Amino acid sequence: MSWYALDDPNDPQLDDLAARFQLHPTHIEDCRSNNERLKAEGTDQYLFLILKYIRAVQEGDLIFANFFLFVGRDFLVTVRDTPDVSCEILQRAQRSGPDQPPSKLLYLILDSIVDSYFVSIDHSDDRIDDLQDSVLDNPSPAILQNLFDQKRKLIELRRVLVNLRDACMSLQRESGSIINPELYPFFRDVYDHSLRLLDMVETLRDLLNNTFDVYLSSVANRTNQVMKVLTILSTVALPALVISGIYGMNLKGLPFLESDHGTEIVVGAMVASTGMVLWMLKRFGWL
Amino acid sequence: MSWYALDDPNDPQLDDLAARFQLHPTHIEDCRSNNERLKAEGTDQYLFLILKYIRAVQEGDLIFANFFLFVGRDFLVTVRDTPDVSCEILQRAQRSGPDQPPSKLLYLILDSIVDSYFVSIDHSDDRIDDLQDSVLDNPSPAILQNLFDQKRKLIELRRVLVNLRDACMSLQRESGSIINPELYPFFRDVYDHSLRLLDMVETLRDLLNNTFDVYLSSVANRTNQVMKVLTILSTVALPALVISGIYGMNLKGLPFLESDHGTEIVVGAMVASTGMVLWMLKRFGWL
Amino acid sequence: MSWYALDDPNDPQLDDLAARFQLHPTHIEDCRSNNERLKAEGTDQYLFLILKYIRAVQEGDLIFANFFLFVGRDFLVTVRDTPDVSCEILQRAQRSGPDQPPSKLLYLILDSIVDSYFVSIDHSDDRIDDLQDSVLDNPSPAILQNLFDQKRKLIELRRVLVNLRDACMSLQRESGSIINPELYPFFRDVYDHSLRLLDMVETLRDLLNNTFDVYLSSVANRTNQVMKVLTILSTVALPALVISGIYGMNLKGLPFLESDHGTEIVVGAMVASTGMVLWMLKRFGWL
Amino acid sequence: MSWYALDDPNDPQLDDLAARFQLHPTHIEDCRSNNERLKAEGTDQYLFLILKYIRAVQEGDLIFANFFLFVGRDFLVTVRDTPDVSCEILQRAQRSGPDQPPSKLLYLILDSIVDSYFVSIDHSDDRIDDLQDSVLDNPSPAILQNLFDQKRKLIELRRVLVNLRDACMSLQRESGSIINPELYPFFRDVYDHSLRLLDMVETLRDLLNNTFDVYLSSVANRTNQVMKVLTILSTVALPALVISGIYGMNLKGLPFLESDHGTEIVVGAMVASTGMVLWMLKRFGWL
Amino acid sequence: MSWYALDDPNDPQLDDLAARFQLHPTHIEDCRSNNERLKAEGTDQYLFLILKYIRAVQEGDLIFANFFLFVGRDFLVTVRDTPDVSCEILQRAQRSGPDQPPSKLLYLILDSIVDSYFVSIDHSDDRIDDLQDSVLDNPSPAILQNLFDQKRKLIELRRVLVNLRDACMSLQRESGSIINPELYPFFRDVYDHSLRLLDMVETLRDLLNNTFDVYLSSVANRTNQVMKVLTILSTVALPALVISGIYGMNLKGLPFLESDHGTEIVVGAMVASTGMVLWMLKRFGWL
Repeated sequence: MSWYALDDPNDPQLDDLAARFQLHPTHIEDCRSNNERLKAEGTDQYLFLILKYIRAVQEGDLIFANFFLFVGRDFLVTVRDTPDVSCEILQRAQRSGPDQPPSKLLYLILDSIVDSYFVSIDHSDDRIDDLQDSVLDNPSPAILQNLFDQKRKLIELRRVLVNLRDACMSLQRESGSIINPELYPFFRDVYDHSLRLLDMVETLRDLLNNTFDVYLSSVANRTNQVMKVLTILSTVALPALVISGIYGMNLKGLPFLESDHGTEIVVGAMVASTGMVLWMLKRFGWL
Repeated sequence: MSWYALDDPNDPQLDDLAARFQLHPTHIEDCRSNNERLKAEGTDQYLFLILKYIRAVQEGDLIFANFFLFVGRDFLVTVRDTPDVSCEILQRAQRSGPDQPPSKLLYLILDSIVDSYFVSIDHSDDRIDDLQDSVLDNPSPAILQNLFDQKRKLIELRRVLVNLRDACMSLQRESGSIINPELYPFFRDVYDHSLRLLDMVETLRDLLNNTFDVYLSSVANRTNQVMKVLTILSTVALPALVISGIYGMNLKGLPFLESDHGTEIVVGAMVASTGMVLWMLKRFGWL
Repeated sequence: MSWYALDDPNDPQLDDLAARFQLHPTHIEDCRSNNERLKAEGTDQYLFLILKYIRAVQEGDLIFANFFLFVGRDFLVTVRDTPDVSCEILQRAQRSGPDQPPSKLLYLILDSIVDSYFVSIDHSDDRIDDLQDSVLDNPSPAILQNLFDQKRKLIELRRVLVNLRDACMSLQRESGSIINPELYPFFRDVYDHSLRLLDMVETLRDLLNNTFDVYLSSVANRTNQVMKVLTILSTVALPALVISGIYGMNLKGLPFLESDHGTEIVVGAMVASTGMVLWMLKRFGWL
Repeated sequence: MSWYALDDPNDPQLDDLAARFQLHPTHIEDCRSNNERLKAEGTDQYLFLILKYIRAVQEGDLIFANFFLFVGRDFLVTVRDTPDVSCEILQRAQRSGPDQPPSKLLYLILDSIVDSYFVSIDHSDDRIDDLQDSVLDNPSPAILQNLFDQKRKLIELRRVLVNLRDACMSLQRESGSIINPELYPFFRDVYDHSLRLLDMVETLRDLLNNTFDVYLSSVANRTNQVMKVLTILSTVALPALVISGIYGMNLKGLPFLESDHGTEIVVGAMVASTGMVLWMLKRFGWL
Repeated sequence: MSWYALDDPNDPQLDDLAARFQLHPTHIEDCRSNNERLKAEGTDQYLFLILKYIRAVQEGDLIFANFFLFVGRDFLVTVRDTPDVSCEILQRAQRSGPDQPPSKLLYLILDSIVDSYFVSIDHSDDRIDDLQDSVLDNPSPAILQNLFDQKRKLIELRRVLVNLRDACMSLQRESGSIINPELYPFFRDVYDHSLRLLDMVETLRDLLNNTFDVYLSSVANRTNQVMKVLTILSTVALPALVISGIYGMNLKGLPFLESDHGTEIVVGAMVASTGMVLWMLKRFGWL
């Protein structure tokens, strides 16, 4: 078995390999265009896979890297499009020795990729738990920003994982002679893991939507509270203002103007009218 | 028939059993990784199931425990991953006696698990009923918190039940020789129950969303009410304040300043203008 | 043909019938547990159906009653679980005479049940029409409560009807010898009616969501209106208050203090400044 | 070929035709009940179709009329349930002459009905365009009412069109001898048109939801603007009111009371404090 | 091979070609009606395709143009319905030379159309990124307008792309002799690209909905902030106004009226009561 590991899709060696192993021109083109969808498809001679793994997380955004595989009966061509990073995805396959059949190496690579997604989703899960705790206490715009960043990450992740699941399913159905039959249960296991990844992403999306609803209703609640405070303050102040305004007028004939207890009576009237308005608000269930 | 009941997936006895009954390495690995999806799948020799049951409810969160089964023609291996709790799930199977076929025991265990979910959902149902009653009366943040906790529980529950239903369906389709044909109607019954569980969870989710909408509109309504109170208070007070302000000015030539009935006239004007503003608001349908 | 009509699932006669006609234990258990899903399933010897009909509407909630049927080639067993009400569902079947084949009676019972749902949905339709009319005029919390009660009813109804449709479909596919082939078009008709029921429930749900959106936007609109009134009132009053406050100060040197036309000038300034603020608000499109 | 065009489903002639052409009783019953779903189904002898067309648009509501067809090898029975209107749906079929095969007439009638839906949808499209333009400029309740009327119309239309599409699809699959094989491309064309109708309705629904979101956010925006105006007004007025209130007190020892420039100083302090509050609001990004 | 490129569907040459190549009348009618859906369908003799490409973007709206193809074994008829623009869609096919089989030309045209959609979606992607950045900083109505324009564009684009995907899928399934078998992988590639286009549109729609939610919650947040400012301002001012109102009354017996330190005491009381209200608001967590 021979394994050709290329670090650059534009490497002319890929053309040589394409000629030698009769790789289809559309597949070579797929490697070189950078706008491709994760997929797995087969010809009689080989399987072609486009895989994606999370290369880095930059300011909350997931940076995906493409990974192309041509898996034949006795050859394996792997093409990476981001040669600058050390690739943990390949380590398990590299360690397992060169005498393995190509489909065993394919399984090891797929399984490493799926495992890397679990790490990423667990990380998201922790972040969302933190967000949920802080949203009810303090619904600030910074949390909102964070919440939407997580949401965008999940939108992207879901799209990639849906395609990964489809690719795993089409590998399972692959009745060709390329995948060793005794590896079927392993590929089925990878497929189950891809389903579980999607389950987890869906659950996280539901939880995030949940959190967003909590945020919105917390803000609505707070606006409501603030409005009530304003109303109570106005209620307390207005009767006093009206009565003191009346007694501030330069008019004759206001009652108690000349009385020695005028102040006590009028201030008492202020307190009484304020109390009455508060009592009315309470009675009609407004406060 | 021999039944091996292990309390720990890492028990070396599991390796011995795997060797004796030719259990597939991916299944043994599934038992030992704790990130697996509920499922049922079969080989020619045995059925492998990953089941989940609700071990405990901690502060509103559901704690699931995994339960692994290997069901062969004449052997049954059950593996629990949380040995510290007494397991009611197994009691019915244990009581039915050791001379039952493994698939009969499988049915009894599955049925016990499904029944335990019914208990949990009925409990949720009661909580949601209580929430619905209190939301319209008093939409407080504490109720909101409660509401979202229920929602999260249902999200988790739904995910597990979808997988349970799929597992029950794949058991039904199992044409192998492991499940006794005369048990088919019983497995179909379990499948029907899993469908009903999902129905109930979906209905509860709809009701919770309903309740959340009630909450949001109650808060909006209350804000609206508070705003109206504030507006009415301002309307009542402002004309009086403006008129008393004018008569408080140290200017000459204000009408009725020297009149003996000045107070009556001016206060009457205050009341009249307040009444007029209220009448205008009413007429334009604003209050 | 013999028809056994039981009024209580716990009637011991059911056990006798089960023994005589070889009814499956899971089906007998289904009759006696009260947590079952509407369904239709067949064995070689008979069809077993769980049906639900609306027994009563209590304070807006639908109360369903279960109805179990065992339809054989020459026998019919019907079991009701709420014997206290007279059952209109059975009347058409009872009137059609005892010499009908069991599957004909099954059709008559099914058709009566489907018709009873049409009555219930038409009733809901009228209620929703009323709600829609009143929501725009007067979005009160009482209407909201009513709206959500209707919504809950539709959620329940939909769940039952989905299962009814599935049961009708599985009856259609029933290739066994129990249903008389010349009755096929009749069962197809019942199936079409169940589809139409679901259509109607979906339409009503869409209309209710529509009505809820109208409610929410009406409340938002009213809040907006109330805010504007408050702002206009404040705008009208504030310049007057500020100016009268200034002229109420016990300071020397205020212009026009000694003038005979001071009052006219200052009140004119109040009116002018109020007008100017209103004009500014209008110009910037705020009011 | 003979064409029987009845104007009333209760016409006794329908019973005669049913006897002569062996029309199934459930189909005759379908014609006479007015609660049926649009559908197409076939027996060996004839095709039975229930079609719906838009009879009129009354105050924004679509009034549908039913149209029943029995299409045999050498006969056509058409039944209308609203005889009072002239039926443009039939005109093309009537003009094509009596010597056409029944399935050709069926095609012409179906095509006329589909075309009439295109007219109705184009009309809705124009209305929605108008709504979208006016919503951002002036989000009034009248527009809201209009918007929800359109939404209700689309809900109804969609339900009918889904059934129309299903009927067209079942006609295409009709392998019987009733539809002339050379008409297949024409029926496929009608099916394509029904798909396009559904596409258009879905797009219009998306656009309407879009418009509703614009409405809601416009109202929220305006409330926000009004609140800001109120806050600015209060900010401008409050410092002046507080200071003038203080200098209106009948107390001794207020500074500048006896000064000749007291007025200038105190009014200057009012302006300065108002400016300071505005500057603070600006600095904290609140306005 | 002969290629007939018509610039106008009403060109009488189309009728000649229809007669010569036995093109079906419904297809010719499809070319001439302008209300058709993108599709691909085949007869024994030729494939008929209706394609759409983006002719122009006018004020944010996508203007689609139709493009009709008849692909036979040895002929190709292309019909454009907007002859006024130079058509880049055809350039690759024109350059590839006249000796290519018609299905190769079909592939080249399809691929050009798919590529043109990628350009359009990338453009939308950039716009949505810009929107997302500006929404949190400054949620203005202009951004809202922009956001909804993008949404409408995606709704239209999605509808067209769904049909494009279906057409590509039906081309793949085309087992006829018109498409050269060795071109199958190329058509599969085009199909994959159409799937990826839909993926991208779905992701963009999710992101736009996300952005809209950010907008709504930013506005709610700002309203909340403005309300708080208003409440703080009122809180600061009201105690001072009430106390100064009381000391402005023309009553006898107010304490400190005759004191030399009256002003200091009363103003001190104002400051103290304002501070107390603020402290209370803070303590109850309202501010």
